[in-house]
Amino acid sequence: MNIALVILAAGKGTRMNSDLPKVLHPLAGAPLLVHAMQAVGNLAPERTVVVAGHGAEQVRAAALGHNPTAQVVIQDEQLGTAHAVDQAQAALQGFDGDVVVLYGDTPFLQSGTLARMLAARADHDVVVLGFDIAELQPRYGRLIMEGDRLTRIVEYKDATKDERAIRFTNSGLMACDKETLFDLIAEIGNDNASGEYYLTDVVALANARGLSVTAVKCPESETLGVDSRQDLADAETLFQSRARAEAFADGVTLTSPETVHFAFDTVIGRDAVIEPNVVFGPGVTVESGATIRAFSHLEGCHVARGAIVGPYARLRPGTELSEKTRVGNFVEIKNALIGEGTKINHLSYIGDATLGQQTNVGAGTITCNYDGVMKHRTEIGDNVFIGSNTMLVAPVHVGDGAMTGSGSVITSDVDADALAIARAPQVEKPGMAAKLMQILKAKKAKLQRGS
Amino acid sequence: MNIALVILAAGKGTRMNSDLPKVLHPLAGAPLLVHAMQAVGNLAPERTVVVAGHGAEQVRAAALGHNPTAQVVIQDEQLGTAHAVDQAQAALQGFDGDVVVLYGDTPFLQSGTLARMLAARADHDVVVLGFDIAELQPRYGRLIMEGDRLTRIVEYKDATKDERAIRFTNSGLMACDKETLFDLIAEIGNDNASGEYYLTDVVALANARGLSVTAVKCPESETLGVDSRQDLADAETLFQSRARAEAFADGVTLTSPETVHFAFDTVIGRDAVIEPNVVFGPGVTVESGATIRAFSHLEGCHVARGAIVGPYARLRPGTELSEKTRVGNFVEIKNALIGEGTKINHLSYIGDATLGQQTNVGAGTITCNYDGVMKHRTEIGDNVFIGSNTMLVAPVHVGDGAMTGSGSVITSDVDADALAIARAPQVEKPGMAAKLMQILKAKKAKLQRGS
Amino acid sequence: MNIALVILAAGKGTRMNSDLPKVLHPLAGAPLLVHAMQAVGNLAPERTVVVAGHGAEQVRAAALGHNPTAQVVIQDEQLGTAHAVDQAQAALQGFDGDVVVLYGDTPFLQSGTLARMLAARADHDVVVLGFDIAELQPRYGRLIMEGDRLTRIVEYKDATKDERAIRFTNSGLMACDKETLFDLIAEIGNDNASGEYYLTDVVALANARGLSVTAVKCPESETLGVDSRQDLADAETLFQSRARAEAFADGVTLTSPETVHFAFDTVIGRDAVIEPNVVFGPGVTVESGATIRAFSHLEGCHVARGAIVGPYARLRPGTELSEKTRVGNFVEIKNALIGEGTKINHLSYIGDATLGQQTNVGAGTITCNYDGVMKHRTEIGDNVFIGSNTMLVAPVHVGDGAMTGSGSVITSDVDADALAIARAPQVEKPGMAAKLMQILKAKKAKLQRGS
Repeated sequence: MNIALVILAAGKGTRMNSDLPKVLHPLAGAPLLVHAMQAVGNLAPERTVVVAGHGAEQVRAAALGHNPTAQVVIQDEQLGTAHAVDQAQAALQGFDGDVVVLYGDTPFLQSGTLARMLAARADHDVVVLGFDIAELQPRYGRLIMEGDRLTRIVEYKDATKDERAIRFTNSGLMACDKETLFDLIAEIGNDNASGEYYLTDVVALANARGLSVTAVKCPESETLGVDSRQDLADAETLFQSRARAEAFADGVTLTSPETVHFAFDTVIGRDAVIEPNVVFGPGVTVESGATIRAFSHLEGCHVARGAIVGPYARLRPGTELSEKTRVGNFVEIKNALIGEGTKINHLSYIGDATLGQQTNVGAGTITCNYDGVMKHRTEIGDNVFIGSNTMLVAPVHVGDGAMTGSGSVITSDVDADALAIARAPQVEKPGMAAKLMQILKAKKAKLQRGS
Repeated sequence: MNIALVILAAGKGTRMNSDLPKVLHPLAGAPLLVHAMQAVGNLAPERTVVVAGHGAEQVRAAALGHNPTAQVVIQDEQLGTAHAVDQAQAALQGFDGDVVVLYGDTPFLQSGTLARMLAARADHDVVVLGFDIAELQPRYGRLIMEGDRLTRIVEYKDATKDERAIRFTNSGLMACDKETLFDLIAEIGNDNASGEYYLTDVVALANARGLSVTAVKCPESETLGVDSRQDLADAETLFQSRARAEAFADGVTLTSPETVHFAFDTVIGRDAVIEPNVVFGPGVTVESGATIRAFSHLEGCHVARGAIVGPYARLRPGTELSEKTRVGNFVEIKNALIGEGTKINHLSYIGDATLGQQTNVGAGTITCNYDGVMKHRTEIGDNVFIGSNTMLVAPVHVGDGAMTGSGSVITSDVDADALAIARAPQVEKPGMAAKLMQILKAKKAKLQRGS
Repeated sequence: MNIALVILAAGKGTRMNSDLPKVLHPLAGAPLLVHAMQAVGNLAPERTVVVAGHGAEQVRAAALGHNPTAQVVIQDEQLGTAHAVDQAQAALQGFDGDVVVLYGDTPFLQSGTLARMLAARADHDVVVLGFDIAELQPRYGRLIMEGDRLTRIVEYKDATKDERAIRFTNSGLMACDKETLFDLIAEIGNDNASGEYYLTDVVALANARGLSVTAVKCPESETLGVDSRQDLADAETLFQSRARAEAFADGVTLTSPETVHFAFDTVIGRDAVIEPNVVFGPGVTVESGATIRAFSHLEGCHVARGAIVGPYARLRPGTELSEKTRVGNFVEIKNALIGEGTKINHLSYIGDATLGQQTNVGAGTITCNYDGVMKHRTEIGDNVFIGSNTMLVAPVHVGDGAMTGSGSVITSDVDADALAIARAPQVEKPGMAAKLMQILKAKKAKLQRGS
């Protein structure tokens, strides 16, 4: 069956108190909207339509950034969920199949749940997603079932005492054949207190037409929506807790699990060791048996088997650490390939570079990749010894087996096996330190007398 | 009405197991005493008297540090709360108005509560602060009310079964006209088990005189006192939890809220982004739309709109970051003004300096501000390019549009638009690296044979 | 009485999903096995036998690393706990006294509990350790007591309703005279569902012989076993929570207690201050009144009274900080003795070094201790001023009162009171910066046109 997703993402999210549209607030390093878009898993929808409103251009950019084939339509006025879905109609021209409506601020929906909704479509015209609430709250409409038929949805304020005790409530998600859906939506009115067009009314209209409506159940946590920054904090806590549980199941060693911050797409291999206070930004893969030491910060990088990173290592996007590399404290690496067994242990900046195998980079080494206008590359071979505090002024190439003298500024290429050095000779002035200190102290005393 | 605060801060805090007086232990970066002093909010007391005892000189310094007009009196012997208040009498000579008695180890009292106590003074001679306890503990005296009259305070051990079930209990705080208060205190005896003079006795004495006594109610959490390090930890948890809730309400984005450590006076603007593991020391303001990345540490600094700080940036007191500045990883800034759009991205120390606009500071740059005796300033203009690993030996001035060569030690001023360079020429010794490694390996082998 | 410990550590720990044997997974920086071995406290066992199986060589190394006199025996097949204990028989040849059987995956057992088990041996032949479970779980066998006699252990599946309600359950630990124990074990059969030899059967066999069996009770938390990574995380949480409570009792100031990560052997003095996000690896002692600032990482080091470390300081093994030293941000120290009052405040690497008193090490200083083959030492005297960005190419010695010029590479020893400098003169090229920027910008524009 062909599937189209319609994701409602037009709301301002007033309670967020933010200029950023609500669906763009980040959860585990990705906008809420991207989490919602990911719920599709492997279902391969033919169309994905995002209905944007507040901050539509930013929403469009985020949606296309995640899925370049997504279509973004604009809901200029916020006239209710049915009105929002209706904005997707033109974008779905030529599409024939099932439409699933979901929400940009509901990040925990699982693809399995969507699959169950679509499966239920085999026997029913409209499928609603519901969940059992743990606490009987007035917030959600109750789903009134007769067997597997959803006969109506009753709002709490209109419900009898018995109906209010029903735990099975409406999430707002829905699956339906496209033609039927837009037919039903066309009948929805706004004769209610807030003057909005509610998608929920589809259920009553479908039943009135004699169509078959059902409800599929998922865990309450999957329907968790984000309305406030506190909600977002709670969602982050839930996300991190699940990520930890997954890491345990995958055989990852976390020596202080609650201090590790995962991103939505972090991948860590079995028996990799993650020490306390590690932050994973988006796009990180750590292979089996690698170690990430405390206080490290990784984004958009790959750490191969047996590599040891940190403490206090920062790997920025484009970093590729080969097997058994060693990146130590106060080291920043960006857009660089580091060869097998190579060590960069202390206080260095390696950017826009390729390093060979078994090379040793001394403390305080800097690739001077920026000339004030453009970025340039540094290339270093195998078995090189870069002396401490070497400045590598890019573009520059250092050959295999070469050495640089400590404190050298390397501006020209260095041949293989050569020693390059740029250093003034050491001069000693006997007694001069003692004299200088006397002078400085006298000067200070004079200044203090003067003040 | 004139107000005088009397803050009791003489206790040793034996359970803290510390040489530091209890009221000086820090909560969210400020001594407990300072939190208590801040409870006054905008009430503008004419006098603030701190009654010190243990560690009186340290307490005096902290009190005057927060409020230079505070008076600190000494209670040499700890003979009870009434005795402690009595020590303030001389300091209040010439003052006419209401005295509010509060405690240096009760950091959560809100100024609104004090205001309500003072408002209640319009109808009553003595106003006591009470709170409803969640759990019926023997620790607190029960407040026996008849209408709005507080007729007596009964200690748990003397209470009937019915009285023990009363939840409204005594916090120990009190407001009263100065003359009345000291009159009543003069009547208080110490004929009790511990031989102490209890301020609580004011209530019985006032009622006996036919004065009107009432009690104002506040939430239990406002009266939370700190007696042990565990109490202090609990108070820190409560403080941080409130600070997070306030940040949410203010529209601050916290990507991992529970890992951010706020100080008592942290100010963060709407839509500022605070990443995981950020520590705010005292005196920090972050403007709207600025970003503080992970593992950053800020104290006594101001970060303007659109600035991006960190990860691993340390801003020390006196740092002023203008709009759109960028301070990157492993960078320390102290007592420095950084101009708009200027970047200091990697591994640098900038201290006692003024930097202009749109200047780029290369990795490994150090302002050599200390000559072993005195500190000196570095001044850098607009649109300057400081090459990587430049040492700026202060005092030194680099003009607008100037450049320094990577690895240069700059000891003299650099003119605008000039290039300053201090660098030995690069010399290459072909094959020397290979030879050196052979020699070193042979030496090592020999040493190993020898051992 | 002579004591021998038999520690069962042969299990694979399938649920850990790891190549590392379960007992080697770290808790607070030490393998679970080491925690179990430490339970012995001051009891001074004559023999310690570790029964290893899965990953036996790694287990042997860890056991001997903690206690070089331990004996490690191999259980080739995992045929049950009785079979495991039986493997220790040969290793206990010549030993005469009490055997205590404990488990390598039970890290919280207290030495006081072992002492109580051994004391109970005065009146009983066999002593079992039990605990009261908080929740009635089927997992543990119920201990059926008659007075102080343990008459039998009944597994949940075989228990009556009344027996299932018993909270006193079996931990599996046992103390018994060696001869008796192995006699009884010899009688144990494997005629049960899993075909294993259960140590628990000792109780029934001993009772059948008319021996006296009893059970000693400990808190449930002491018997907490680790079977999964989630269990290990829970154990870590429990360990850290206890470590915090101990630190409070010892008078340690923790400004954000829940963000400090202790190791199993961390020692911190009274009124030492530990700021947020500090990680203690194994082997750290911090003396009274020292301060460890935020984001610091310490392993195998000693910090003396009045020293201030961090933020962002990394002290590696072999670091010895004397009184009143100061180690600041982005500083790494390894295998170095730092003299009283000496300061290393910024961006430095000090490795394999001895520094005297009252010496000031400038920002960006690096001891170049590695020549590509061997490590060498740096020695610096008292009252030395090391200029910023000094490279100290070891082996090298800098005498008392000497200075080095900022940016110098020091390759030869420096005499006391001398100034050593290795620096190219500063050359200024007027207008050259402006010209260079023009050229670079033109080049970039050309490249962009070309692309």
